[in-house]
Amino acid sequence: MTDPPRPVVTAFEWVPEFARGLVRDLRVRWALEEIGRPYDTELLNARAPRPDQYLARQPFDQVPAFADGDLEIFETGAILLYLGERDDRLLAREGQARWTAISWLFSALNSVEPFVQRIVVYDLRHKDDPWMPGAREAALGLCKQKLDRVNAALAGRDWLAGEFSIADIAMVTVLNILRHTDLVAEYPALADYKARGEARPAYKRALDAQYADFTPEPA
Amino acid sequence: MTDPPRPVVTAFEWVPEFARGLVRDLRVRWALEEIGRPYDTELLNARAPRPDQYLARQPFDQVPAFADGDLEIFETGAILLYLGERDDRLLAREGQARWTAISWLFSALNSVEPFVQRIVVYDLRHKDDPWMPGAREAALGLCKQKLDRVNAALAGRDWLAGEFSIADIAMVTVLNILRHTDLVAEYPALADYKARGEARPAYKRALDAQYADFTPEPA
Repeated sequence: MTDPPRPVVTAFEWVPEFARGLVRDLRVRWALEEIGRPYDTELLNARAPRPDQYLARQPFDQVPAFADGDLEIFETGAILLYLGERDDRLLAREGQARWTAISWLFSALNSVEPFVQRIVVYDLRHKDDPWMPGAREAALGLCKQKLDRVNAALAGRDWLAGEFSIADIAMVTVLNILRHTDLVAEYPALADYKARGEARPAYKRALDAQYADFTPEPA
Repeated sequence: MTDPPRPVVTAFEWVPEFARGLVRDLRVRWALEEIGRPYDTELLNARAPRPDQYLARQPFDQVPAFADGDLEIFETGAILLYLGERDDRLLAREGQARWTAISWLFSALNSVEPFVQRIVVYDLRHKDDPWMPGAREAALGLCKQKLDRVNAALAGRDWLAGEFSIADIAMVTVLNILRHTDLVAEYPALADYKARGEARPAYKRALDAQYADFTPEPA
């Protein structure tokens, strides 16, 4: 009897300090750690375009791409859904619980992440651009509106869909994009929720694994 | 024998001209039209916050929310997935075809829409802000990168996942957010693809239905 093949997750072999812990393969590693499924990583160079054939696996030339045997999937949302459908510790099998989790999975990626991402792009890539403060202020208002909604939705519950699910893996890692700010701390339920997610042993193992794959900074 | 209950989609009873045809209930109407499933709309006031109880159905106070019998779903991605799982004219039942479509569904909403959305927000809401041109230029570079990737992925195929799917409903409507610009026209495969999607009879019926629900502009 042989073990099932290990899924393969692509990740970067090195990224600058500010990106460590934020690269999105973390989401997939976290889900795999929650269900105790061993996996392999395929490490790519973040500082150069990937080989052309990588675009067939990940059309936006990003990480992660994911393979389970012959099956190839890209986009963290899709990979999380795939893993969730195979293990009810990640996603309820059916009914309202399943669809509430999937609704929140899409929320994390479409209603929250875009607004959070703009803040970090302004702060890290455009901090010296003269237009940045005005643009950031406009973006900040929208970002706070979204955080406020998620904070309100968390009243009286530990996880977005009742039980822990792939929605929480997505939302906690989206909130962490703001770690260079005090924004999440302004929302007590949100801050508690993020801490609760990051306290899970599977999260810690995933984070350690991502860091362990980074080679030392080139001289 | 009674008909199955009609699903209910929330929509706005009026929006300004620039938003008509872009409100996201269109995506859900389109999917329902593709499979010939009759539905009801529940029209909300776009010019005032919705009643507090609406947040339990749509935590971001947006449209659409969706109900099929007792089941409630929010986020267009989740609603499209739900409808897709119930009809293989919208989503392949299994295997690579299913996961390619789901990967592209998430791409449309997480890798493309956020970059497209920034352009329209700058152009429509911030056109007189002094910081806008600088911010738009930075956003435009990223947006073009994403459009270029989708354009390349469409080489030699009519639809993102081979057969028409929910991924195309999401991507075509995302591209349409740029209709006030000539950006999509810069990418021939992308422009053809968008025209192909919008030529589908189900798209036209959905668009007509959204417009038909708008009341005349208040005096």
